[in-house]
Amino acid sequence: MEIYLDNSATTKPYEEVIETLAGTMRNYYGNPSSAHSFGFKAEQKLREMRGGIAKSINASSEEIIFTSGGSESNNFLIKGFAKPSQSKLNADIITTKIEHPSIINTFKSLVDSGIKVDYIDVNASGRIDIDALIESITKDTQVVSIMHVNNEIGVIQDIELIGKLIKEKSSRVKFHVDAVQSYGKIPIDVQKFKIDLLSTSAHKIHGPRGVGFAYVRKGLIPSSLISGGGQEKNLRSGTENLAGIAGFAKAAEIVFKNQHENFNKVLEVKKYFIEKLSEVEGVIINSPLAAYFTPYILSVSFKGVKGEVLLHALEQKGIYVSTGSACSSKSHKTSEILEAIGRTSEEQIGTIRFSFCESNNFDEVDYVIIELNKSLKFLRKMNKR
Amino acid sequence: MEIYLDNSATTKPYEEVIETLAGTMRNYYGNPSSAHSFGFKAEQKLREMRGGIAKSINASSEEIIFTSGGSESNNFLIKGFAKPSQSKLNADIITTKIEHPSIINTFKSLVDSGIKVDYIDVNASGRIDIDALIESITKDTQVVSIMHVNNEIGVIQDIELIGKLIKEKSSRVKFHVDAVQSYGKIPIDVQKFKIDLLSTSAHKIHGPRGVGFAYVRKGLIPSSLISGGGQEKNLRSGTENLAGIAGFAKAAEIVFKNQHENFNKVLEVKKYFIEKLSEVEGVIINSPLAAYFTPYILSVSFKGVKGEVLLHALEQKGIYVSTGSACSSKSHKTSEILEAIGRTSEEQIGTIRFSFCESNNFDEVDYVIIELNKSLKFLRKMNKR
Repeated sequence: MEIYLDNSATTKPYEEVIETLAGTMRNYYGNPSSAHSFGFKAEQKLREMRGGIAKSINASSEEIIFTSGGSESNNFLIKGFAKPSQSKLNADIITTKIEHPSIINTFKSLVDSGIKVDYIDVNASGRIDIDALIESITKDTQVVSIMHVNNEIGVIQDIELIGKLIKEKSSRVKFHVDAVQSYGKIPIDVQKFKIDLLSTSAHKIHGPRGVGFAYVRKGLIPSSLISGGGQEKNLRSGTENLAGIAGFAKAAEIVFKNQHENFNKVLEVKKYFIEKLSEVEGVIINSPLAAYFTPYILSVSFKGVKGEVLLHALEQKGIYVSTGSACSSKSHKTSEILEAIGRTSEEQIGTIRFSFCESNNFDEVDYVIIELNKSLKFLRKMNKR
Repeated sequence: MEIYLDNSATTKPYEEVIETLAGTMRNYYGNPSSAHSFGFKAEQKLREMRGGIAKSINASSEEIIFTSGGSESNNFLIKGFAKPSQSKLNADIITTKIEHPSIINTFKSLVDSGIKVDYIDVNASGRIDIDALIESITKDTQVVSIMHVNNEIGVIQDIELIGKLIKEKSSRVKFHVDAVQSYGKIPIDVQKFKIDLLSTSAHKIHGPRGVGFAYVRKGLIPSSLISGGGQEKNLRSGTENLAGIAGFAKAAEIVFKNQHENFNKVLEVKKYFIEKLSEVEGVIINSPLAAYFTPYILSVSFKGVKGEVLLHALEQKGIYVSTGSACSSKSHKTSEILEAIGRTSEEQIGTIRFSFCESNNFDEVDYVIIELNKSLKFLRKMNKR
């Protein structure tokens, strides 16, 4: 039995995605930048896919810049606008303490160039202090960067309200949203939410690795991260990864068709999981059933065990999960968000993230609960000796 | 009939590459950074492929950083080491006038940060002035960046001699080679050639788009272009594109097994092509049969026609070629290299690049020559009216 509950790290590509990607490699191998009809055919295909992707967030085609994924999108959109202010008094960028490493480490890399960054706190339920955020905006603020869905515990920030308040305070500030964990799962409307810049990744929605897109609101011109042949409106050079983009577009087509249905399916699974966890001792739920938590992520702290040890015990039974944070869960750092919601460092170490996709089901949960109970009993007994 | 002679823009992926890529998406969908065995299996696979790739240039595994392609590799390796010198008198970077846009435009983007770049001339056969290059190296020189095979006319620079002379002059200078057009086609040995940094792309050797690697000599630490989760030794963040890398490794495996044989096959085709061009009037060969020209590229200037018009006439007959420069042949700029080898601007405009792969053959050349003659006769007559 193999139960994959690490869908926030990466997902299994849909078979249709694999076939689309392979088919595109076979049939559209022209370079979209070539002048001949082989290239033109490839460019047409690219245009078609760009249109579909744009529609998925209520953007227009010209606002979509394809990249190699979420990390590149985040780096590109932040570095593309980060310039030290004249005054050097106020923050150039405002963000939160709970962002993904591709945001946090991008900011750290900018410190040397004189960029000032403000990190806003989150409250005990993991939501950011919106008042503090809005208050911290000054005439020097260039970018506000907020993650839509947190990758560790799944808390959803109120992007619509934040977008509205930012724009009321300053029309000059660019609002960036890291939507890597939300795109395709929770509705995003860049117009309604007043988003200027947005990052996504294909492989979180059963698409291929190495593809993503950056949304750049019309009229905004970031400096490019990758200079060269001038592809993607001169904002992202490099021969377009047509097959990867086709795979991404196919994945997006499938998830957006089923977005609502998938959401409800996964919500039922999460509900059932939490219900069943009441049969397990020494458990703290970090991702409760609240409207501001995604159903796709369930973070649980288990008392008296190490998450890493529990993870390996579970994988012996064919259950694949993650400890603490997502993408690079091999690094052992304390978690800003688990800290914020009040987990002790012992509880943080005992934290496991179960992350779902629409194909997970109740039977899998039943099996996981049985194996969890067995593993916990064994590990806790070992620890007491 | 379809005759694809635009292999320097992009190649048709090998069927084995497509199958490897698809198979990896199906069977290794774990995130290499995940702690569980699914991730471990993916990481093992990644390690295996990194080893194969490293061997292909006589490097060690730890010196290979996978990227999204040639443009990213060039940007990463150059920007990763470009810091303005203290003195501000001498050039920080030395390069040539005939580099690819992903090099030239990277340098242009660095001017604002105070980086000084020297551009070395090439002589009438397209080879760079090595004496001038070596002479221009000072204590402030950080990087010398030279393209191995030029993408427009296929002239090969003597990387081995240049590497030797650079290191004799200064052990501090980092030698970067843009090997996008040579990797897999012409032997590269980073030890023998004393290369410190090297850029490649998979899709030029029948691999997938959106993948490449950067070679970084052990001990050198560039700053990263994409910050984040710390993948690729913290030099290139983003979930590893395992399937793309597997496709790249498969393509490399195939081309390196046949490198010598392919080279000779393509050389015969180029020889035959040049021979047959003697039957065509008003022709100047920009890529002669010399040891310092790759057989993979044949640039020809046709008198009295526009390359773009000829390109479209040929594609009507199922022949796919490129005008002037490679990757972004839609932009109409004069060509630095065609200028250097003495082509008038009219001749430059009349230039077509035929670029080969090992599956091109004599029959195709015969057909191309017939259609070329027909098209040229028609177009030249039209121009005279």
